[in-house]
Amino acid sequence: MATELPKVLVIGSGGVGTIAALSLTLNGKAEVTMVVRSAYEQVMKDGYTVKLVTYGSFDNWRPHHVSSTVEKAESDHGPFDFLVLTTKNIPDGSMTCEQIIAPAVSKKTTIVLVQNGIGIDEPMKAAFPENILLLGILLIGSTLKGTLVDNIYKDQLILSPFANDGHSHEEVMSRVNLFAELYKNADPEVNYVRVEENSKKSRWEKLVYNAVLNTICALTGLDVNRCQIAGANKDLFMPAMKEVVAIAASEGINLDDEICYKMMHIGDGLFYAPSMLVDLNKKQLCEVEVILGYPLKFAERNGVYAPILSTVYQLLKIKQLHLKEEKGMITINLEDFQGYNSDDYPQRLEELQKK
Amino acid sequence: MATELPKVLVIGSGGVGTIAALSLTLNGKAEVTMVVRSAYEQVMKDGYTVKLVTYGSFDNWRPHHVSSTVEKAESDHGPFDFLVLTTKNIPDGSMTCEQIIAPAVSKKTTIVLVQNGIGIDEPMKAAFPENILLLGILLIGSTLKGTLVDNIYKDQLILSPFANDGHSHEEVMSRVNLFAELYKNADPEVNYVRVEENSKKSRWEKLVYNAVLNTICALTGLDVNRCQIAGANKDLFMPAMKEVVAIAASEGINLDDEICYKMMHIGDGLFYAPSMLVDLNKKQLCEVEVILGYPLKFAERNGVYAPILSTVYQLLKIKQLHLKEEKGMITINLEDFQGYNSDDYPQRLEELQKK
Repeated sequence: MATELPKVLVIGSGGVGTIAALSLTLNGKAEVTMVVRSAYEQVMKDGYTVKLVTYGSFDNWRPHHVSSTVEKAESDHGPFDFLVLTTKNIPDGSMTCEQIIAPAVSKKTTIVLVQNGIGIDEPMKAAFPENILLLGILLIGSTLKGTLVDNIYKDQLILSPFANDGHSHEEVMSRVNLFAELYKNADPEVNYVRVEENSKKSRWEKLVYNAVLNTICALTGLDVNRCQIAGANKDLFMPAMKEVVAIAASEGINLDDEICYKMMHIGDGLFYAPSMLVDLNKKQLCEVEVILGYPLKFAERNGVYAPILSTVYQLLKIKQLHLKEEKGMITINLEDFQGYNSDDYPQRLEELQKK
Repeated sequence: MATELPKVLVIGSGGVGTIAALSLTLNGKAEVTMVVRSAYEQVMKDGYTVKLVTYGSFDNWRPHHVSSTVEKAESDHGPFDFLVLTTKNIPDGSMTCEQIIAPAVSKKTTIVLVQNGIGIDEPMKAAFPENILLLGILLIGSTLKGTLVDNIYKDQLILSPFANDGHSHEEVMSRVNLFAELYKNADPEVNYVRVEENSKKSRWEKLVYNAVLNTICALTGLDVNRCQIAGANKDLFMPAMKEVVAIAASEGINLDDEICYKMMHIGDGLFYAPSMLVDLNKKQLCEVEVILGYPLKFAERNGVYAPILSTVYQLLKIKQLHLKEEKGMITINLEDFQGYNSDDYPQRLEELQKK
C-alpha cells in the first residue's frame, strides 16, 4: 500500500460504518482503519461476509487495518486525516460521541459525522473547536448481522460542511471535496456522492423518515409495510411527517411538498425493518434524543404544535428507560419508590443514580 | 344446595370472572356456574388456588358448577336468571360477545356486562332486544396465572341498568337490586356494591384509566410506575387523560376535576401491570376498539381534538395486527403486497382475507 494515501479512521462498525469502510477501501484512494469492538476477534480471523446490491459480494473482507479500540487505532495507524463517526448518537447513553472520538482527534483531523438527527454539531464543535467538522448523510438501508453485511439501496452519501466558524470557506470546501474524492467510485451506479454547501435541508428531509417511520416501527415492533397494512399511512405517518415539515419550516428550512409522500413510499414492498427497530430488537439504546428530543425542542421554542411526535417521543423515552434497566445501566428497586408520589419518580431516580 | 336459588352463569374465566364467581359463590345466595375453556381439566381436578387481599386464601376452590362450553352450561345447569359476561370485548376478534353468549340467553336471562369500554351496549341490545341489560364495573386489580387468582384492591362492583327501552324502570331496578343482593357480602370490608341509576359517569371515569394507563403500558411493555419513572405523568398521562375528560364532556358527562389525578396515582408504588399489558404479554388480542376506537368516534363526531389518544390508538392497531398475525388469524405474504402502493395495503389485506 502506498503510504502517502490519506489516512481515514472509521469509528462505528455497524451497517453504515462497515459500508463506509468498504467504499473507502475499494476505491483505493485512502488507507482505512476501522475500530471494531465486540466482533474484533472474529473479524481478524474471518473478516466480513459482504452481500451488497451494488458493490457485489465478498468473503473474508477487511479494511486495511482493524483496531479493537480508538486508542489503539490512533497509536498503531494514526494520526488520521479524516475521522468518520458512524456510531449512534445517544447523549443519554453511557458515553457521549465527543468522549468516544477524543483519543483519535489531532489538530489535522477532519471529523465527518455520519449520524442521524438534528442539533448534533453543537456539542462536537464545543469539544473540538479547532477541527473542521463535516456532515455525511448515508442513505443505504444496510444491516449487519454478526459479520454479514447487506444493503438494499445504492450507497448514496450527501456530504457538506457543518459548524466551521474560524475556517475559511475554501479550506473547508477543500476538505469536503477531498473526502468526496476518496469516497466516490468511478462508476456512478456503484455509489454516489453529492456535495452540498448547506446540508440542513437534506438533514431535515432524512428526519422526515427517521422521526416517523423509524420511531414508530421501533415502538410497535413491526416493519414499515406491516404498519402500513394496519393503516398507518393516512392517520399516523402522513400527519406525523407534516409535523416534521412544520418544525423544519419554523427553522427556516422549507421542504418540498413531495418529501412526505416520497419518504412514506420509499420502502413500499420491501418489508424493511428500520434501524431503530433493529437496534431495539438487539436491546441497544436508540437515538430518541437526536431524532425526536432535539427537534421537539425547536418546535417548543418556535411555537410549533407537534402532538403526534411528542407522543411518540414520550413513548420511546419509556422504552429507552426499559432498555437501560435491561442493560444494567440503571437499577429500579420497587422499595426505593414506594411511599413517594409518582409525580416525583423521575427526580427520585436521579437521586438514586447519584448515590 | 337449595335448588330455589337464582341461577347465575359467569362467562369469562380470567381474573375478573373468577373473582365474580367467587364472590357470588361465597355469599351463598346464588347457584353459580362458570364456563372454563382451556383450563377446564385442571380446574375440575384441582380447582383454583385463591389468594385474595379481602376474601382470604383457598386451595382447590370451585364454583358450584364448571362447564367447558356455553352450550353445555345451558343444557346441564340452565336456564340462567343472570348471565355475567366478563370476557374481553373485541369486536375485531374472531367472535363477537353476542355470538359468545347466545347459547345461554333465554327470555328470562338478565345480561350483566362486566366489561370495559364505551359503546358496548348497542350491539348487545340489537342482538337481544327483549333481555334486560345491566352493566357492572368491577374495580379489583386481579390477575389469574394458570389457576392462581390474586388481587390487590378490595372487590368493588358498580352496578347499573344499561340500554333497556321496553322495560319499566321498576322492573329493571328490581333486577339490579337482586343482583346486588346476590353479590354483596355482609361485611362491607370484604366487597362493596354500589347501585347507580346511570353509570355513564363511572364508565367514563374508568376509561380515564383504561384509555391512558392501560393502553400506554401495553404499548411500551412497562408497568405504570416504570412509565412514571420515565416521566410519563406530566407530558403523557395527564394530557391524555384530559383528552378523555374532554370527549366525555362532549357527550354530556362532566367528570370531576380530580379524576385524572386520582386515576394517575391509584397505583403509586404498586408496580402493577394493567390488564392490557398482561393480555399482550400472553399474546392475546386487546380491547383497542372499545377502549379507544369507539371513544375516538365520539370525539370525531363532536369535534373534540384528541391527538394523543389518536396516536396511541393508531399504534395499538398496529400491535393488534401483529398479534393477529402471530395467532394465525391473518396471514401476511410479502409477495401479495409487492407491486401495490402502500396506501392501498389495508384494502389489499381485506381482499386477501376474503379469498
